[in-house]
Amino acid sequence: SKIDLETIAEWWNIPYPESFDTSQLKTQGFIHVKGNQFVDASGKHFVFRGMNIASPDKLLKQGQWKKSLFAELKDWGVNTIRLPVHPIGWRSSGKYNYIELIDEAVVWANELGIYLILDWHSIGYLPNGLFQHPMYKTNVQETMEFWQFVAARYKGVPTIAVYEIFNEPTDMGGKAGTADWLEWKAFNEQVIDVIYAHDKQVIPLVAGFNWAYDLTSVIEHPIEREGIAYVSHPYPQKAKPKPRTKDAVYASWTEKWGHVSAKYPIIATELGWVEEGGFGAHIPVIDDGSYGPWIIEYMEARNISWTAWCFDPEWSPTMIHDWDFKPTEQGKFFKKVLQAY
Amino acid sequence: SKIDLETIAEWWNIPYPESFDTSQLKTQGFIHVKGNQFVDASGKHFVFRGMNIASPDKLLKQGQWKKSLFAELKDWGVNTIRLPVHPIGWRSSGKYNYIELIDEAVVWANELGIYLILDWHSIGYLPNGLFQHPMYKTNVQETMEFWQFVAARYKGVPTIAVYEIFNEPTDMGGKAGTADWLEWKAFNEQVIDVIYAHDKQVIPLVAGFNWAYDLTSVIEHPIEREGIAYVSHPYPQKAKPKPRTKDAVYASWTEKWGHVSAKYPIIATELGWVEEGGFGAHIPVIDDGSYGPWIIEYMEARNISWTAWCFDPEWSPTMIHDWDFKPTEQGKFFKKVLQAY
Amino acid sequence: SKIDLETIAEWWNIPYPESFDTSQLKTQGFIHVKGNQFVDASGKHFVFRGMNIASPDKLLKQGQWKKSLFAELKDWGVNTIRLPVHPIGWRSSGKYNYIELIDEAVVWANELGIYLILDWHSIGYLPNGLFQHPMYKTNVQETMEFWQFVAARYKGVPTIAVYEIFNEPTDMGGKAGTADWLEWKAFNEQVIDVIYAHDKQVIPLVAGFNWAYDLTSVIEHPIEREGIAYVSHPYPQKAKPKPRTKDAVYASWTEKWGHVSAKYPIIATELGWVEEGGFGAHIPVIDDGSYGPWIIEYMEARNISWTAWCFDPEWSPTMIHDWDFKPTEQGKFFKKVLQAY
Ligand SMILES: [Mg+2]
Ligand SMILES: [Mg+2]
Ligand SMILES: [Mg+2]
Ligand SMILES: [Mg+2]
Ligand SMILES: [Mg+2]
Repeated sequence: SKIDLETIAEWWNIPYPESFDTSQLKTQGFIHVKGNQFVDASGKHFVFRGMNIASPDKLLKQGQWKKSLFAELKDWGVNTIRLPVHPIGWRSSGKYNYIELIDEAVVWANELGIYLILDWHSIGYLPNGLFQHPMYKTNVQETMEFWQFVAARYKGVPTIAVYEIFNEPTDMGGKAGTADWLEWKAFNEQVIDVIYAHDKQVIPLVAGFNWAYDLTSVIEHPIEREGIAYVSHPYPQKAKPKPRTKDAVYASWTEKWGHVSAKYPIIATELGWVEEGGFGAHIPVIDDGSYGPWIIEYMEARNISWTAWCFDPEWSPTMIHDWDFKPTEQGKFFKKVLQAY
Repeated sequence: SKIDLETIAEWWNIPYPESFDTSQLKTQGFIHVKGNQFVDASGKHFVFRGMNIASPDKLLKQGQWKKSLFAELKDWGVNTIRLPVHPIGWRSSGKYNYIELIDEAVVWANELGIYLILDWHSIGYLPNGLFQHPMYKTNVQETMEFWQFVAARYKGVPTIAVYEIFNEPTDMGGKAGTADWLEWKAFNEQVIDVIYAHDKQVIPLVAGFNWAYDLTSVIEHPIEREGIAYVSHPYPQKAKPKPRTKDAVYASWTEKWGHVSAKYPIIATELGWVEEGGFGAHIPVIDDGSYGPWIIEYMEARNISWTAWCFDPEWSPTMIHDWDFKPTEQGKFFKKVLQAY
Repeated sequence: SKIDLETIAEWWNIPYPESFDTSQLKTQGFIHVKGNQFVDASGKHFVFRGMNIASPDKLLKQGQWKKSLFAELKDWGVNTIRLPVHPIGWRSSGKYNYIELIDEAVVWANELGIYLILDWHSIGYLPNGLFQHPMYKTNVQETMEFWQFVAARYKGVPTIAVYEIFNEPTDMGGKAGTADWLEWKAFNEQVIDVIYAHDKQVIPLVAGFNWAYDLTSVIEHPIEREGIAYVSHPYPQKAKPKPRTKDAVYASWTEKWGHVSAKYPIIATELGWVEEGGFGAHIPVIDDGSYGPWIIEYMEARNISWTAWCFDPEWSPTMIHDWDFKPTEQGKFFKKVLQAY
């Protein structure tokens, strides 16, 4: 039963939102930032490795929102699942309904010893209010309010280790106006302040421009808050060296985002590929398969965390062909990599 | 029949809003600011003394929106009633429907010789778009539009003497971001300009931070507009001196807001208490009852106007137990105080 | 069938908007800005001359949205039709539905060799979020998004020659706050940048204050973008010289907006009159009829383009009495003027 806060007859009886009851969770250590890495509760280095799933509300409507999905991912070897929350889904479900799904994700992940990355899954340039598609439409107030609400609810919950503030900032080459790093930095700092006023035991994750690829502004103008990490989405066609040798691709990655890993922790929360002509092939995810080993080797050599996209048969590049979890080409690859840890 | 301006079929036939017809009112003098006090039409000092009621749309839905409510308050001795308009109620009723209630309040109050304070009843920090509860959610555009609409409608109506721009500004200790007085001051000045462009015979009322308690920025950075007043909500637990002597509480009040009364007029539009464990007891309204005489003596010594909270059996601290108007502890106290004038 | 993007069940299947298929159009030259004039594809001076119609969605609901309306206008001699899109209509129809109407207008106008001016028909001061009537209510995000969406759809379509960014900016003498030219200029430049990132073969049209009348700030602080034009709405009562001689009216027009035509191209996208007591007579459109020849002579002497208001029997000043297209007083006049070209 969907709660519509705006039309509820007795608005004066809307309850104050409650925090998630952490007593139902089993012990799971908090992950923190230390230098350019993550550490667990015992101070040991920790690397997030895992996969994205589709949006919880999409999975619910398709009858696939169940603990067995998380268990399958555990079997594939993930220690982390990323939950992309699309603004259009957040609004159409209603926040009080949507958090019931996130609550379930917390319980399931906690039981399985998995961490969650909660991602506000928009694409565009938020300060200009312009986006790539109606799915991604939001505004500054809604985005701030989302993080205020989420931070209040999941305070003290170790399972949701990371808050990814905004999935893919981009001005789309001017089609969303002009993006400005100092403006974007200030906005992210505001969101981090609201999160930290509720909960200091969570890692805010900040993205750069070019669809969360480019982190070149970070060294000169870092986010001036402690305990945060940066994100990149290094899909294969983002780096375009000619000729496309492994060394040249590595140099390109290092120049655009990898160099930041020397100073700050990084999570590549989206990566993956599909062969040309394959299901859902589109720029920038098309690759002949050489990308897989390259990106894994690159990230592992630098302690860069990662969650591949996407453990869903519809959202490309797909990891599975169907709901029997039959792996795709990249699915086989990432399953093998994950299970080796 | 609720008018939804956004989905009306023939939007090109939506009429222009009309101003309230003042010819239906009996003579009632305009109240104005003079120095640090209010004066009536004859130039005599005037002090607003009265009570809050619940939101008109709440009372309507509960079958309690009637002139006899105002008459009962008249019998209790009020010269002023404060009407809190919650943004969620304004939106869900629709503005064209809501003003029918305010129109009725004007007619009833005018017949009884009572003044009204119209209050945009939000809690949070509006420039950041973050609030304490869904009831209080609004935004800058809606708030400006509310005052534009109200000022156009009630131009020349002496009965609504005061426009309280924003009930309780607060950044909730960072949970609503960071509040900034100069930003807040500029916003209030913009609203006042829109009000004054419609109607100069009304008193805009400006609140400070800490849930409309703290006015310490006002002396150095006052609102640079004539004819306005300031508001404080001095609930008992806002002042926390130890030991809690009357002198220490007075000193605390003077430091945080009372000193402003030497230079500008003040209305304490909310105040009241309930005993620990009493109905609706919550911070900051809990007190053993010593608060009542203290705050009245403090305000009266400084010509500070006031409206106590709340002449409703559900909204705490309550003044009445039920709709037979059986007074609560504070109800008995304030009734006696008011009837003595 | 109305598409509501916010409540659609499978939001993940909302298609990406497609661009208009230009292959269905016959050849029609692009109009461009050259110096202070417009030129056609062959470089010859071009003057837009035509009329406004009512909003496409209004005409649709009234059974008058048909190609024969455009054909009648062609018969009256127009080379241009202005389409006013009211924000309330855009929202209530839904953008995916509304562009079906604009698509039809493009096809009809193209077949008839007519150009279109697409007009975001709001009145008020957008940066303050305050408007003259609910019909005109919008906000910065919606306005930017409208132009982003429209520019993406009609890229490469010569028929829609002009994008009129905002119909009538005005702070209504303070009732919509305070308007500031540099703020307004910066906003228009942002919109132009978004348009040009999609389509450089269109002419953005920028309005000044006083309900799109006053262009006096343009010479000192022009819009710093190439290829744009300015607009004025010189309704008869905007100029108020005493005595009201032709020379005095001309001097007034030149002072407030006409002088800009020496440096930049101008389109008067609204003008017209009705006699006192005539249908829909209201300030500032009342005139005894001397206005018609004066304004035409004034504009033609300066190569100023124009579209008169309004080829509709309900929107005053009307050009027609009914849907048999019986001309009004001004209708007879403008028909004669247009047919002479
Ligand atoms: Mg910007
Ligand atoms: Mg956590
Ligand atoms: Mg008044
Ligand atoms: Mg402004
Ligand atoms: Mg075009």
